[in-house]
Formats: sequence, structure tokens, C-alpha cells
Amino acid sequence: MGKPKDTFDDISPIDYRYWDEETAKYLSEKAFVKYKILVEISLAKALYERGMYSESVFREIKAACGQVTVEEVYDEEKRIHHDVRALVNCIRANVSAEAKPYIHLTATSYDIVDTANALRYKQACENVLVPALINLEEVLISLALKEAETTQVGRTHGQHAVPITFGFAVAGYISRIGKCIKALNLRSEELTGKFSGATGAYNASSLFFDDPENFEQDILSELGLFASEHSTQIVPPEAFTRLFSEIIIVAGVLANLADDMRNLQRTEIAEIQEDFEETQVGSSTMPQKQNPISFENVKSSWKIVVPRMITVYMDQISEHQRDLTNSASSRTYSEIITYVVYMAKRLTQAMGSIKVNKRNIKRNLSMQKGLILAEPLHVVLAALGHPDAHEKVKTLVRKAQDENCNFHDVIICDSEIQKYLEKMTREQQKAVSSVFSYSGIAAEKSKTIAKKWKRELGL
Amino acid sequence: MGKPKDTFDDISPIDYRYWDEETAKYLSEKAFVKYKILVEISLAKALYERGMYSESVFREIKAACGQVTVEEVYDEEKRIHHDVRALVNCIRANVSAEAKPYIHLTATSYDIVDTANALRYKQACENVLVPALINLEEVLISLALKEAETTQVGRTHGQHAVPITFGFAVAGYISRIGKCIKALNLRSEELTGKFSGATGAYNASSLFFDDPENFEQDILSELGLFASEHSTQIVPPEAFTRLFSEIIIVAGVLANLADDMRNLQRTEIAEIQEDFEETQVGSSTMPQKQNPISFENVKSSWKIVVPRMITVYMDQISEHQRDLTNSASSRTYSEIITYVVYMAKRLTQAMGSIKVNKRNIKRNLSMQKGLILAEPLHVVLAALGHPDAHEKVKTLVRKAQDENCNFHDVIICDSEIQKYLEKMTREQQKAVSSVFSYSGIAAEKSKTIAKKWKRELGL
Amino acid sequence: MGKPKDTFDDISPIDYRYWDEETAKYLSEKAFVKYKILVEISLAKALYERGMYSESVFREIKAACGQVTVEEVYDEEKRIHHDVRALVNCIRANVSAEAKPYIHLTATSYDIVDTANALRYKQACENVLVPALINLEEVLISLALKEAETTQVGRTHGQHAVPITFGFAVAGYISRIGKCIKALNLRSEELTGKFSGATGAYNASSLFFDDPENFEQDILSELGLFASEHSTQIVPPEAFTRLFSEIIIVAGVLANLADDMRNLQRTEIAEIQEDFEETQVGSSTMPQKQNPISFENVKSSWKIVVPRMITVYMDQISEHQRDLTNSASSRTYSEIITYVVYMAKRLTQAMGSIKVNKRNIKRNLSMQKGLILAEPLHVVLAALGHPDAHEKVKTLVRKAQDENCNFHDVIICDSEIQKYLEKMTREQQKAVSSVFSYSGIAAEKSKTIAKKWKRELGL
Amino acid sequence: MGKPKDTFDDISPIDYRYWDEETAKYLSEKAFVKYKILVEISLAKALYERGMYSESVFREIKAACGQVTVEEVYDEEKRIHHDVRALVNCIRANVSAEAKPYIHLTATSYDIVDTANALRYKQACENVLVPALINLEEVLISLALKEAETTQVGRTHGQHAVPITFGFAVAGYISRIGKCIKALNLRSEELTGKFSGATGAYNASSLFFDDPENFEQDILSELGLFASEHSTQIVPPEAFTRLFSEIIIVAGVLANLADDMRNLQRTEIAEIQEDFEETQVGSSTMPQKQNPISFENVKSSWKIVVPRMITVYMDQISEHQRDLTNSASSRTYSEIITYVVYMAKRLTQAMGSIKVNKRNIKRNLSMQKGLILAEPLHVVLAALGHPDAHEKVKTLVRKAQDENCNFHDVIICDSEIQKYLEKMTREQQKAVSSVFSYSGIAAEKSKTIAKKWKRELGL
Repeated sequence: MGKPKDTFDDISPIDYRYWDEETAKYLSEKAFVKYKILVEISLAKALYERGMYSESVFREIKAACGQVTVEEVYDEEKRIHHDVRALVNCIRANVSAEAKPYIHLTATSYDIVDTANALRYKQACENVLVPALINLEEVLISLALKEAETTQVGRTHGQHAVPITFGFAVAGYISRIGKCIKALNLRSEELTGKFSGATGAYNASSLFFDDPENFEQDILSELGLFASEHSTQIVPPEAFTRLFSEIIIVAGVLANLADDMRNLQRTEIAEIQEDFEETQVGSSTMPQKQNPISFENVKSSWKIVVPRMITVYMDQISEHQRDLTNSASSRTYSEIITYVVYMAKRLTQAMGSIKVNKRNIKRNLSMQKGLILAEPLHVVLAALGHPDAHEKVKTLVRKAQDENCNFHDVIICDSEIQKYLEKMTREQQKAVSSVFSYSGIAAEKSKTIAKKWKRELGL
Repeated sequence: MGKPKDTFDDISPIDYRYWDEETAKYLSEKAFVKYKILVEISLAKALYERGMYSESVFREIKAACGQVTVEEVYDEEKRIHHDVRALVNCIRANVSAEAKPYIHLTATSYDIVDTANALRYKQACENVLVPALINLEEVLISLALKEAETTQVGRTHGQHAVPITFGFAVAGYISRIGKCIKALNLRSEELTGKFSGATGAYNASSLFFDDPENFEQDILSELGLFASEHSTQIVPPEAFTRLFSEIIIVAGVLANLADDMRNLQRTEIAEIQEDFEETQVGSSTMPQKQNPISFENVKSSWKIVVPRMITVYMDQISEHQRDLTNSASSRTYSEIITYVVYMAKRLTQAMGSIKVNKRNIKRNLSMQKGLILAEPLHVVLAALGHPDAHEKVKTLVRKAQDENCNFHDVIICDSEIQKYLEKMTREQQKAVSSVFSYSGIAAEKSKTIAKKWKRELGL
Repeated sequence: MGKPKDTFDDISPIDYRYWDEETAKYLSEKAFVKYKILVEISLAKALYERGMYSESVFREIKAACGQVTVEEVYDEEKRIHHDVRALVNCIRANVSAEAKPYIHLTATSYDIVDTANALRYKQACENVLVPALINLEEVLISLALKEAETTQVGRTHGQHAVPITFGFAVAGYISRIGKCIKALNLRSEELTGKFSGATGAYNASSLFFDDPENFEQDILSELGLFASEHSTQIVPPEAFTRLFSEIIIVAGVLANLADDMRNLQRTEIAEIQEDFEETQVGSSTMPQKQNPISFENVKSSWKIVVPRMITVYMDQISEHQRDLTNSASSRTYSEIITYVVYMAKRLTQAMGSIKVNKRNIKRNLSMQKGLILAEPLHVVLAALGHPDAHEKVKTLVRKAQDENCNFHDVIICDSEIQKYLEKMTREQQKAVSSVFSYSGIAAEKSKTIAKKWKRELGL
Repeated sequence: MGKPKDTFDDISPIDYRYWDEETAKYLSEKAFVKYKILVEISLAKALYERGMYSESVFREIKAACGQVTVEEVYDEEKRIHHDVRALVNCIRANVSAEAKPYIHLTATSYDIVDTANALRYKQACENVLVPALINLEEVLISLALKEAETTQVGRTHGQHAVPITFGFAVAGYISRIGKCIKALNLRSEELTGKFSGATGAYNASSLFFDDPENFEQDILSELGLFASEHSTQIVPPEAFTRLFSEIIIVAGVLANLADDMRNLQRTEIAEIQEDFEETQVGSSTMPQKQNPISFENVKSSWKIVVPRMITVYMDQISEHQRDLTNSASSRTYSEIITYVVYMAKRLTQAMGSIKVNKRNIKRNLSMQKGLILAEPLHVVLAALGHPDAHEKVKTLVRKAQDENCNFHDVIICDSEIQKYLEKMTREQQKAVSSVFSYSGIAAEKSKTIAKKWKRELGL
């Protein structure tokens, strides 16, 4: 593994650029070794509790575990080419001859590794990813409440459709992320560990215990985990696969939000703007540029993580009681979590400080001179029995476009429409007259959803 | 769309080769149009129930819907370049002038399309995919019970590890598929529809109803669906994404099983064999060949579907209130379900008729002359306090290999081991003596798991 | 393969919706069988030429090949479960007892299948995909020449950057697609066939010929192909992989062009518009909508094909002299070509009829009131020795923004800048004064590139 | 970017586990900054050569560039949030007031970044990846020559097919990797740089030079690169995409080789074995295990890199003159190269020390008692005019299987066959009699291919 190196000798941007201290506590290699040691201690405790050795031996093992460093483990691995055995040897080196034989007793490497993985992924989700998403939700909830009544043109196909409110658009993300948080919590709870030995049949532990499944559960309960219903040398991968799929799904929602914001920041649209610090430089050559770099970065990170889900799906296949072709590949899963935490944090910062340009929101809403009212007109006409409302309104639309005049002016000059206008309710008349009066229940729904998730997430 | 064509003019193997009548009922284009019509009827009913028109108008619409053919819809689409409007026009063409205006009233295209998709995917899962998997489970459960006691060598890294039973190996798949079935049921239940209009704010329905969300739920309840908490022009995609991820996960488990069987059928291993019909040809040139073509086909289908999950993840991103870049792509989702149904059916047929070669299973288990007993020996030695059991046993292993003799013979000739053998329990003595006595609780667990899922799946 | 079905019973949109007659000639299942027969004929010819049988036998075989139908082959396959043997049986059924033994002699199935695949993919590329791309190039070349001088704002990060011309933007795609065409031609030329038998060692053909490699090349030369340097039961997959990667790359360029157009059609930007037929409907509910559906469709098709490249990469791995896990999966490659042909054709039609709105192009270019001239100002200042040009210009930019006035007005009022203006060349003065005078060599380059590719592609 | 950290705080295995010093010289973040500086120097030189400033200014700039550290650049970036401007500022800080304005003059950030990327990827391929592959070729060539005559059973579908030689199997990989090396060399030569400014129209450089394309080429020639025919803010991505696709293709070939070796090492097959060091541990619990961990690791690395190609394809799409959504994602490309170099090196070490077990190769070849001779018998019978050779031989095969006797014994006892045997050539008689006489031209071809590539690669 070559010479000593420092951060900028790193090759992965997750290490030299997007590295995050909070995430590393669970997902760095150092943390991984720490988790494996935790699992060894839990095993040692269970062996002690079943009378395999004295309390002092257990204490000795526990203390020895506390002394092992990742550097030692890697040095030993260089010699023996086996990572878990290297760890075991390092623990053994720290205990008395009496205790030595009991380290790792009855376990196979992946009893340790898969259990450690379940534990660290679970805790990284519960303690870092989910809280990061809740922080984002908090920011979005504020924004949705603040902009609940800000009428904005709704856009489909990049074209003006019918009005919503900006708060309503934000509320959609509150709801989608909220559901992801609930799913993430369920998926991390479903992660399981194992202590069923080399091929999953409890061969070794059966040599000592009549109830090897209870023995397994004792070890895992200490760590807050359940055992897999069935395992081979490894836990069945699906619980991991489901969790990572949900994490990729989260990334998709974040990227969608980032894309929406990028587009709203286009020079011609300019409804929002990412905060720009006093000392910040937008371009190395164009001093006027203020780019949506955080939103672009979130989208770019999505491109990094989505394809990696294929690696996780591929790792579902392990021949017979396992092959090792998931070993290097599963080491990269931690990067997925780290990128998505990074996305969540960056988006929270960006969304928490965007500038909403209400003047431009209003300008854009009005720029088609009321053409977007074609929908309510056509719908109400139809409901009032107009024989061919869709075609009729298309004609009026074309007229307004050709004459470059306000759609409402065209409507009120049309004698056929006149008759229908009279039959409309007051609300319907308003809806066909003003873009500000046709946003359905957008404002109300912004608030309902924001408040619901505020409550649900305990904010 | 060119000239008339027949099945072998098709380009996709899902249509000319792996097409399945049962699946097509839900997932063909014909079925899709049928589902969209169902949704239009449900809308018509809700409008009628809210007094928008008379019962006779409703009956007229319903009857008209029954007459629309997919060919008509495509012809009309050619003219107007809009698939849902084409459908609406076709319905309109079949009703009186009085009824015409009410077709599709308040709805946007994707109120129809996304609701129809939720419904057909849900029903295809519940009525075809899950039953196909339950059939496979039934076959596997029989096999696991039958082979529960068949001691087989466990393999890790393609190398002999410690013994299991063949039933135990099968039980692992029962458990994994069982959990997938439960997850699939949950995921299809979570699919939602929508009737919130062009940008999701209930703009159009609000023109007529004070409670547009109730109106939406009325339409969907008729179809057995819930409404999304929030929608734009489309339902938030995550419920679809989660369902398809689970379907891909199912494919992974099936492919893993197929790979295990392919490997067990290798000429040198030959523990199982795929059934081979009397008239079947194994090779166009090698008359002796009997290939595991069903298992290979299942693996190959997995390669087809896994990457397509990326398409589904990509479709999570839709700009603002939606862009149409998910339209063509989401049409391919039906293929994913169809392939996985095909995999399940093919595997059921193959697993239901495999020949288990017990003689070879026994031969393979013994071929390393007991070397696989190195594990129990090392574990028991350690537990009995041997200071360096792992190294000691490695020495014995090397001795047995060098002298090409039975491992047990080496053990009993070693004076140091002799002392430990005396301290062992009877069970431990047996375990270090015979490969047939060291399969832990494999037999028992095969049965427990098989019976549990038999019960759980109502078999 | 179930009951008879028609087009709308199909499940894949490539068959019921995006099917293309021209492509199907090479890539339908019917075409595939036809290609396999071509290869059998070529084999028969080579055997005849080496004196294995009389000319009349050869004529008989050739005639028999001409009579085989795909339906027969599938019927026979149902009986014997082997597709190529089924084909051989069908040919055999049509010849005399004397000729029967010689059908398929020395060949293994994949001598036929892989050679047929190489041939049909090569021809589909050369005869359909490349011509479709050349048609697109023709349209783009016209457009680039026509709009070579149309100054348009350049956009980076969705923000106004510095000016280009619309023709220049189009020229970028001419160049990128042009290079793809050249690469496609090279990659299809590199496809190879094989006639080396069951494991690639020419075992069977060596029984009859001293120069089996020449025998192989004779068969392939007849088809216009070269033999692989080495093959197993199959040709080494890399030539296929490279071709499909290039096809995916083409799709990426087309999708990028489509995305640019989608964005230029946004209501607020509106610099171009996709043609909209008189009878076309934009939305089922919003009569005013004119959506960029062709551009959206192209982007959506890209989402379909890109992930499928993973299937192709996966198929590179085939155990030993081959396993069959690439069989079902490689059948889907034809869909990739078909989708990309469809994308090219659809984009050609859309680009060939877009409306360029020069008024809006001009409006957008000017909308930032000359702020985009900050770049030339800062660059020239620097070149003239200004100690901190970047900071100075940022200050002027902020002033123009705060006072909402024209950037040029701010410049000429600044005494420090005044001194520098005097030192500038006339060209530099113009460049810092007008957005229409700062598009570098965009106009010239549009024409150079358009003309170069016109020549290069023989248009 | 958090607190100081060390190697085991890293999250990506490419940094803490598979990191390679040789690769890092080109692909670490430190190296990237170094390359960007090289490009700035090249720009400075071209400006000087065109008389923009004195030689002493140029020398000053060059010296200043030499002093910049990556740490400084990151500190400055923290302040101004722009990586290239940060680099420029660091260079500026080291020069006199006179020189300051000229740093980076006329350039946009991606003139620097994309040119630096082209250069470092090119050099990493030429100087690290290709040499690593040539080393592997050298090992494979030795092996193929050594084992050219070692008759081995050919395997298709995991079933015994017809014989090859082990050298022939290896030669297949020599040929496939050889072609990849040639393609890699072509693809890295095709990488281009750019110096066309912010939107690609040479806006800034046109302010000073009449021939801005020559100016661009001057800068790039200094670095050994050509300019893109057309560029925007970035070089058209396709040259990168093609290079990375080829690198993924290399990975596929390496993974296929690794898979073949893994399977040949299965306990039941045992034809080869990965070298196992004296101190190495195979399993933490099973002392007898000797696992193919290098081959497994290579396969696992393949699972890491293949999906990432999707990220590269995604980055082909950049809106208009570019968006920044390829920024974070393209930073991960270096990892792809690094993993594939690692795969090549690990496989070289493993293949260079495998133990070939000729005894087992022979045992396996004979284990089906000559059944694999069914092919030559059936082919020769057919050629001799037998009316239904395929069916006849199937009957004989079944007889040999049922009676568990040697296939040759069955043949010579069959009176019908007897007549045909007499008509056979001596070579044909041998081929149907002994598995050692039916390997076609495998031995010869092993040598031809090995020698050809030895020559071609200058070994």
C-alpha cells in the first residue's frame, strides 16, 4: 500500500474534497476496524456469559480490544493476507496465554464483518443521514410556509402551464423527502447481523451450545441487532440492497430539487438565486457571473451515486455459501452514504439562504398575457355544456397570440363566450380573468403539508 | 408506425420470444389503454355522483368507453400527436352531443396515465409476479424438506469449507424469496394515483368542488388506490421506484439461485442436473452435451433487467411540475416485470424437475479426505485452551496433504492432539472424525424454514 | 410463447410504438433468422468449393435455405429446445437424403450466430444508423450556415456568459456527430465472425482440412467479414462492446442537442420552437400549450439506452470457452440500435422544422444590459497592465446592477477606465461596448465546420 | 474539508487500501493541481512568445508556478469558492505587480481544467495503465508458450465440450488484451485540449490575436496535445468517454480471466491454484482453506468500475455552452483508471505465480470416459454420408452413459460405426479414439498468437 501519504495524495474526491468528519466517524476505515472490534467484544462477552471462561479473561480481552490500532492490523495483514485474522492476531498479541485461544472462538470472519457493516450503516443512517435530511426538511418547511401564498406559474415541459404557489412546489419536496426519511428508518432497522459460522449452519457454535441460534442472538442483541432468519457465510444481502436503494432514491429527490432551483436561477427566469458570498468568485474570467454551484454540485453528486447502485445489485449474487467477489466492491458502499450526506448538507445550506425574487416570479407569471387561463376557460365551458370547448379555446388562444394582446381582452370581446361568462359562478369568473386567482388549493396545501411534516419529524 | 407486422417482425425478445399471455393482460399496450379507460370511467362516475350530469349521461359514457379500441386511439394519435387526448376523442366520438363536454372533465393526461400505471403495476404484481414467486417457493419448500438431511459440502470461494445439507442451501433461497414477496406486497400497496390536475394544485377541480381532495379520493377509491399526499402533473415517482427496485432485488435472488445450480451442474461437480427432455438437443454439434440452459437463461435475464433500474432512477428527476422526459422511458418498465415473471416461471419449472445426484454429493463431500474437519478441530482445541490451535491445525493439514492421507488418520496419530481428544465431548469427538457429523443444525434449520414459509404463504 | 398476438399485445414500446420498418429489415427476429441462413449458405458454399460435395448438392442446400420460415424454426425449437439445431433441422427437411448430412457440417451453433450478428449489426449501422445520422448532419449543416451570424448569448451554468452565434452552437453538434459517424464506421468494420468450432480450436474443421483458418476466412469473406484472431465458442465480445459503446455515445450527443433545444424553448427563453402541426394537441387540458415533445422524447430514449450498455459490458464475461448467460441478454442489443436510429430520425425531423425566433434571441442577448461585457473589459484591462482588473470590473458590475443601468454607461463614466479605453485598439473598444461585437470567431467557425463536414460526408 | 486526517480516516478503499504510488503521480489531487499549473505555464509561454510581455515576466511567472502548493490553493478556494481562480490567485501572489495581470490572461477555467485532464489521463494511460497491461501480457505469453501443448478439456456451459490446450485458452486473453492495448493507445492519442475561452468562440483571445486558433494550438503543442475541432467552455466530452469505455472494456477482459481462474481453482476442478505464501491465512476459522483471493479481488473491482461508466456517459450532456453538473462527477474518473491499474497489477502477480496442476488437467479431461469424442464421431459420420449422424451418436452416448463404460469401447462394438471407421482417414480415426488427439490446431495457435504479440508489444 505504498508510502505514507497525505490528504492531497488521495485519488477519490470523497477523501480530499467532500470528506466529512461526522460521516467518517462511522464510515472511515478506522471506524470500520473499530466496529469490528466492537463485534469481537460482544462475542467475547457472550462466551463469558455462557461460562466459557472467567470474568477476568473477558476483562482482559475487552481491554486488549481497546488497544488495537488500525495501523497494527494493516501491518499484520501485509504479513498474512487476511484482514480479520490480522485483527484477531492483534488482539491476541495483547492478552495472556490463557486468554489467547478464546479470541474469535466459534466465529468466521464474516460473522464479524457483516455484523459490523450492519451496525455502522445503521448508525450512519440514524445518526448522520437522517438528521441531515431532517435539517433540510426544517429549511424547506420554513420556506414553504413563507412562500405558501406566492403565486408562481406552474411549468410542465418547460412551458408555462397553470399557476401554483412557490410554497406548494417546495411542499412537494417536503413530502417526498419526508417519505424517504420514514423509509430510511425502516430500512436501517431491517439490517441484520449473523453469528452462524463459516457456512451458516452454526457448525462451530454447535460444538459448544445446544442453542446456537440463541447464542447468536445474545451477541447481536448486545449490539442492538437481530439475526438473519438464514445466513450462509454472509448475511443475505437484500437488507443492505434495500437500504442502499432507498439512499439512492433520496439522492434522486435531492437532485430533482437541485435541478428545479438551477432552472429557476437561469438568467431569463431568475426567480431564485443561490446565495453568493462577498469574497466569492463566479468565474475565473467573467466577473459578473453568479452561478448556482451548490445546486450543480448536488446534481453532479447524483450522477456519481446512481450508477453505483448497480454494484450493490451485483453483489447480491454470491456463489454457494459465498464467494469473495463482494469484498472490494462492498467497501465502496460507504462512499454512497457519504456523498448523499454531503448532498443533503450542501442543499440545506443552499436552500437555507436562497434569495426569492418575487418581482421576477410575478413578471414571469404574467409574461404570456393570461394565456395560461385557457385551461380554466376550456374546463368551465365544457362543464357548462359547450359542445367543443377545447377547439373553441384554441381559437381564442391563437387570436390572442396573433394580435399579441391579453387573453382576457380576447375573451370578453367574444360574443359566444359572453353568454357562458354569465352562467359562471363568481369563483369561475375570477379564475378565467386573472392568473392570480387560479392556483387551486396550492396555498392551503403548502401549509397543510409543511405543518404535517413539522409535527411528524418533531420540529 | 409503419406497415402491419407479425410477431417475428418484432425486435424485442420480450415480444417474440419471452412474451407471456398472463403478463400481457396487464402490461401490453392493449392492456394499458384498457386501464386508462377504466380510469376515465371512474372519473366519469365521480362526476356523475357529484351531480355534474344525469345517470343516463354517465351510462352513455361508460358504454362508449367499452367500445374504444386501441387501433382507433393510435389512428387518432397519428393525427393529433397526443395519446391521451386521442383516447378522449375516441370516447367522445361515441357519445351524444350532450355528453361530449364531460369526457375527461377536470383531468389532465397524467391523472389518467399515472393512475392507470399504478393500477396495472399493482395488479400485475399481486396477480402474476407474486403468485409466480409463490409457485417457486412451493417447489423449493418441497425440495428443502426432501433434502433436509442430505449432507453436502459447504463452499466458500469455490473451495470446500464445512458441511451443510442441500436442503439448508435451498432453505436460504426460501427465506430470501419469502422476504421479497412480503416486500413486493408492501411496495405495490404503496403505489398511489392522482387527480390533482395539470400542475397538482387541483386548479380545475377547484372550479367545481370545495373539496377537490375528496373528489380525487373518490375516483381513486373506486379503483382501490390511495391518492398521493402531494402531486404535480405526475405522482411523485418514488413509490414506483421502490417497487421496481424490489423487483430487481427479486431478480438478483433468482439469478443467485440459478448461478448456484449452474455451478453444481459443472461436469466435475455434477451434484444436480437440469431436466433434459427426450427430444431436446444440447448442442448443434456435440451430441453428448446436456447444458443448464434454463439456469443460464435466468442469469442472462438478470443481466437484462438490472441495468434498467438506472432508467427508473433517472426518471425520478422531472423538472418543476414535470417534464416529459420520462414518457418513452417509463413505457419500458413493463418489460422489467415481464422478464422477472419469466425468470420466476422458468426457474420454477427447472427447480421442479432437477435431478439431485446424491452419489456425487457424497463423493464431493469426501474428496478432500476429511480436510474440512480442520475447522472443528481448531475450534475445539482453542476452546480446550490450546495456545495456538490455528497454527497447530495448519501443520496437521499440511501433513495430510503432503502424505495424501486421510485427515482423521493424521489427527489420531498426533500425540499432542491425542490428549485433547480425550477432553472432548462425545459430540466434539464425532465432529472432528467425520464429515457427516459436522453440519451443525443444517438439517433442522432446513425444515424449520421450509415449514415456516409454507405456513406464511398459505401453501 | 403463447397464443397468436398482434402489435398492441406487445409489451415493448420498440415493437408497438417506436418500431421502424427500415431497422426491422436487419434487426427483427425474422431478419435474424434470415441472416443465420445466409451464414449457413456461405458455409455450404465453402464446403462445396473444397470438394465436399457436388454442385447439385450445394444448389439443393441453397434452395432449401430459401424456403425456411421463421415460424417453422420456432415450431421445431419448441420440440428440441435448441434454436440453431432447429434451423438446421428445417433446412435438412427440405433436402434429399444425400444432402442432409452436410448441412451445418463442421460448424457449432455460434459459428452461425455470432457471424450472423456481426453481419447484421454491421449492415444496420452502415445502411440505417449512419445514413440517419448523415441526414441529421445535413439538416444541422443548413441550420449552422443559415444562423452563422445570428449573435446569441452563450450560456454557462444556465447563466449568460459571453456571446456566440446560434450557428456556432449548432456547429458544435455537427462536429461531435461527425466524429461519431467516423467512429461508427470504424467500429462496424472491426466486427468479426468466426468458424472455429465448438471451443475455437478448429477441432471439427481440422478433421477435413489442413488449413482450417483459411477455410474459416473463405466462409467469412463471402459475407464481407474477417475472422477473429482468436475465438472460443464465440467471437471475443470486445468488438461488439466497442460498437455499442459508440452507439451509446451517439445517443449522448443527440440527447445533449435535444436538451439544449428543450431549454431554448422554455417560455421565458423562447429562442426556438419545435414545429407544431395544425391538428396537433399540446395538452389534454391546456389548449395553449405547445410542448417540445420530440426533444423530450429523444432525451427519454437516451435514458432507455444508456443503462443498457451495462448489459453489454456484463456480457464480456463468459466462462471458459463460453457460457450461455449472454444469450437472452444479447438478443436485446438490437433494441439499442433501433432506439438510436429512432432518436436520429426524430431529431432530424424536429431540427429540420424548428422555428428560430431571432427577436427573442436578440432580446435575451441584451437583457442583462451589457453585463456580459465584463469579460472583455477585464481581459483588456489586465492586458493593459491594470493591477487588479478582476476586482475592478466586479465593482463596476455591482454598480451597474445596483443602479440598474447599462454596463457601458457605467464604464464610460468611470475615470480610471477612461484612461484604459484610450489605450485600446478599435476592435477592443468595440468589444467592450456592444454585445454584438464580442462573439470572437463564432460566425467564421460556424461556416468552416459546416463546410468541412459537408465535404467530408459527401453532402 | 474538515480536520486534518490520515490514511485510515479515508472513506474510499482506493485511498486507504488499493492506493498506488505510481498511479497517484498522475491522478491524485496533488498531481491534478500540478497539471493545471503546467497548463498555466504553457499559456504564459505562448503569451510571452507572442510579445505580450518580456522574457523576465515569463520567467517570473514560471518560477511562481513552481512555488504554489495544493494546500495554499485549497485555502484560497475556501475563501473565494472557485478552484481555478484560487490557483490563479496563488500564482499572482508570487509575482511582481508588473506580472500579476498576465496570469491566466485570455483563459477560462476549463481551458486549464480540461487541458490538464486530457494531459494527465493520457499520461496515466501511456505511462501506467498500458505498461501494466504489457507486464500482464508478458506473463501470459510465457504461460501460453509453456502450456501450448497441455491438452485440457474445453468447457462450454460449464460442461465438458471438446479439447483445447491450456495455452490456447491463455492465448485468447493475450489476443483480447493486446487489442485493448492498441485501442487504449489510440484513444489516449485522441484526447484533446482547448484554449477557446468562456464559450468556445475565442472571444477573449480574439481581442489580441488575429489567429486565435493558432494561439490555442501553440499552447497545446507545448503539452503534446491537439485542439478540439470545436469546443464550448469545455472540450466535447466524447474523446474522454471513448477512452473510459475502453478502460472499462479492459476491466471486462481482466475480470473474465479472473473468473476462469477462480473456476479452475474450484476444489473439484483444481487445475490451477493461486500462489499461497507461507505466512498467509486462508480463513480466520478454516485452516485448510486456500482461496483464490486475487482472482476474486479482480472480479470484485470489475463490479466497482463497470457501473461507473454510466457516470461518464451522463457527463456527455452539458447544457448549452456547459453546465457544471460534470464537475464533481468527473473528479471520480481518476478512480476508474486507478482501479483498473490495480486489477492489472494484481492479476499479473497472480498469473505470474499460479501453479498449474497437470495431473488434474489430465484427470478432468478423461473423466467423462471419452464422451467428448461424440463430436468428431458425429461430424465424420456426417461427412461420410451417414443419414442421421447426430441421432446415431446420441444413441451411442446414451449407451456409454447407461453402461458406464468408455465411449470408444461402445464405438468399436457398434457394427454400423465399424463400416464408417474403415472409411476414415488415419487422422480422423485418431480423433474419434482419443481425447488427446482431438484438440484441432490449439497447440499451434497458442504459439502463433503468443509470438505475434510478443513481437507486437516489443517484448
